[in-house]
Amino acid sequence: MVKIAVDAMGGDYAPSEMVAGAVDAVNSVPGIHVFLVGKEEVVNSQLSRHTYDKGRIEVVNAGEVIATEEPPVNAIRKKKDSSIVVGMNLVKKGQADAFVSAGSSGAILVGGQVIVGRIKGVERPPLAPLIPTEKGVSLLIDCGANVDARPSHLVQFARIGSIYMEHVMKVKNPKVAIVNIGAEEEKGNALVKETFPLLKECMDINFIGSIEAREIPHGGADVIVCEAFVGNVILKLYEGVGATLISKVKSGMMTSMRSKIGALLVKPALKETLKSFDASRYGGAPLLGLNGLVVKTHGNSKANEVKNSIIQCIAFKEQGINEKIKESLGAVNQEK
Amino acid sequence: MVKIAVDAMGGDYAPSEMVAGAVDAVNSVPGIHVFLVGKEEVVNSQLSRHTYDKGRIEVVNAGEVIATEEPPVNAIRKKKDSSIVVGMNLVKKGQADAFVSAGSSGAILVGGQVIVGRIKGVERPPLAPLIPTEKGVSLLIDCGANVDARPSHLVQFARIGSIYMEHVMKVKNPKVAIVNIGAEEEKGNALVKETFPLLKECMDINFIGSIEAREIPHGGADVIVCEAFVGNVILKLYEGVGATLISKVKSGMMTSMRSKIGALLVKPALKETLKSFDASRYGGAPLLGLNGLVVKTHGNSKANEVKNSIIQCIAFKEQGINEKIKESLGAVNQEK
Repeated sequence: MVKIAVDAMGGDYAPSEMVAGAVDAVNSVPGIHVFLVGKEEVVNSQLSRHTYDKGRIEVVNAGEVIATEEPPVNAIRKKKDSSIVVGMNLVKKGQADAFVSAGSSGAILVGGQVIVGRIKGVERPPLAPLIPTEKGVSLLIDCGANVDARPSHLVQFARIGSIYMEHVMKVKNPKVAIVNIGAEEEKGNALVKETFPLLKECMDINFIGSIEAREIPHGGADVIVCEAFVGNVILKLYEGVGATLISKVKSGMMTSMRSKIGALLVKPALKETLKSFDASRYGGAPLLGLNGLVVKTHGNSKANEVKNSIIQCIAFKEQGINEKIKESLGAVNQEK
Repeated sequence: MVKIAVDAMGGDYAPSEMVAGAVDAVNSVPGIHVFLVGKEEVVNSQLSRHTYDKGRIEVVNAGEVIATEEPPVNAIRKKKDSSIVVGMNLVKKGQADAFVSAGSSGAILVGGQVIVGRIKGVERPPLAPLIPTEKGVSLLIDCGANVDARPSHLVQFARIGSIYMEHVMKVKNPKVAIVNIGAEEEKGNALVKETFPLLKECMDINFIGSIEAREIPHGGADVIVCEAFVGNVILKLYEGVGATLISKVKSGMMTSMRSKIGALLVKPALKETLKSFDASRYGGAPLLGLNGLVVKTHGNSKANEVKNSIIQCIAFKEQGINEKIKESLGAVNQEK
């Protein structure tokens, strides 16, 4: 049984979509138990609208909510009874294996480190969303709060990301690349130039060299290593350009009677194709390298993304990802 | 008369498209004179296919070509008779006002600094492409070779970019923003945090604060300031995600008979809409802050982009952009 705590209060569509996603997850896969963390009466009132196995969803009361705009360090320290702090404490105490939240990114990143805690040897826990590509999906590691990272951090990101893609996403011998502004080894900023030879020396990953941003949507690498500022820019721009272009396509189709009729005809096929470019179907972004798993889903998550984020936690637990990360770091430390 | 040197030999479709673009430019606007720089017999043979005013296009012989993969510093130093070096020397000597090339980016960036030379006071000449947005176009400054920039460089980029957008692109009081991973002033990496207050103090620009990558396609700012590594990632990803999505849309439309018929009907309207997201119609990326103008067009430029890049040089010269940059830097130095 994989036990997953879900933040019922965080996100633009909380609590309704968070609760609906939890119910959907329990109803669609066996072997999971969900703790819905939030204001008891609010969560119970939402739950009463659904049909599900009552033995598999438990409400855990948390009287406070951390708002998106609150300074994260302060919020985590002061709001001991918030859904994020209470949910993360369930993971810390081993009562839950994972915590899923669509709430404040900052609070989740801080709470992950401060409450759940890092695996011994992990220098900076990376936030690693899956991004859609032509070939499927790639792991973008790191998009978290670790700006101004050092080369040793990026090397850990490469190892951790490789383990995740291999065992959770079932990609054999995942290709690892570092984001760069040219394909040649001598290209790049100081950080990339220093990190490149270190990655080349890693015998436990399949390092294929640099990847230019242009190649990312083509799925040229399974694990895309970068520091968090660059990762954040990639993630946000990916979403921004995608949304803008799709809205352009839609409005373009509405400009004439002729094109409107055409739009009706292409719509079903187009919807199917564009679905493969929808990040939400892969679930949220795992914050990796913690004593447990924390998954950050989009702030605007609906039930489907919440459900997928919960299901994502099963493979993580069953495949023993954290044990594999520990082994990998241990092996590296012994080598030294 | 604005005199523009064009590299006839650089780019994937050189010399034919470079020559065709130059002819188109001369045929469509008055007041320009073009020097086509390249192997005389090759260029003349291309020119013989076109009709144009022979007094307005002059062939300047250059016996060598710098290949894309050549180490730039070496290439600029050794290949004195290459089209890039010969073309840039025309600018240096004042025989041409501008140089347009689709050749090796590295060689153009190095040549710009070494041959054409920086305006006194400009610390690092930025490469500043125009990127399409929902509202029109924004200037992304810097996408050049200046990785690991310092705050003072970014402040110059903001000033120079603002002058360009106001006087070449005719945007009144252009909004200047710095690329960041959150909207709040305390967010960002060390470079952004140091630069932010300096930009706030600039009285000569309309600084509106941070811009997240997600907002860039919406056209939230006219001048988007960032260091070159981040700028390069933005530019390349913009092109990559755009191309991938458009190919997805096209292939999605071809999946069923029904959608194929629909595709025929939406095609003209869609083409028109997507044209507004086509960067090539704005011409190439100016390398700013030099004693003259150097414009880098895409390696895969066709005649239309070459033509637009040439035309872009007219406003630059007529509006006295370099004089305005000098004034702006002079005013700043006096303040100090």
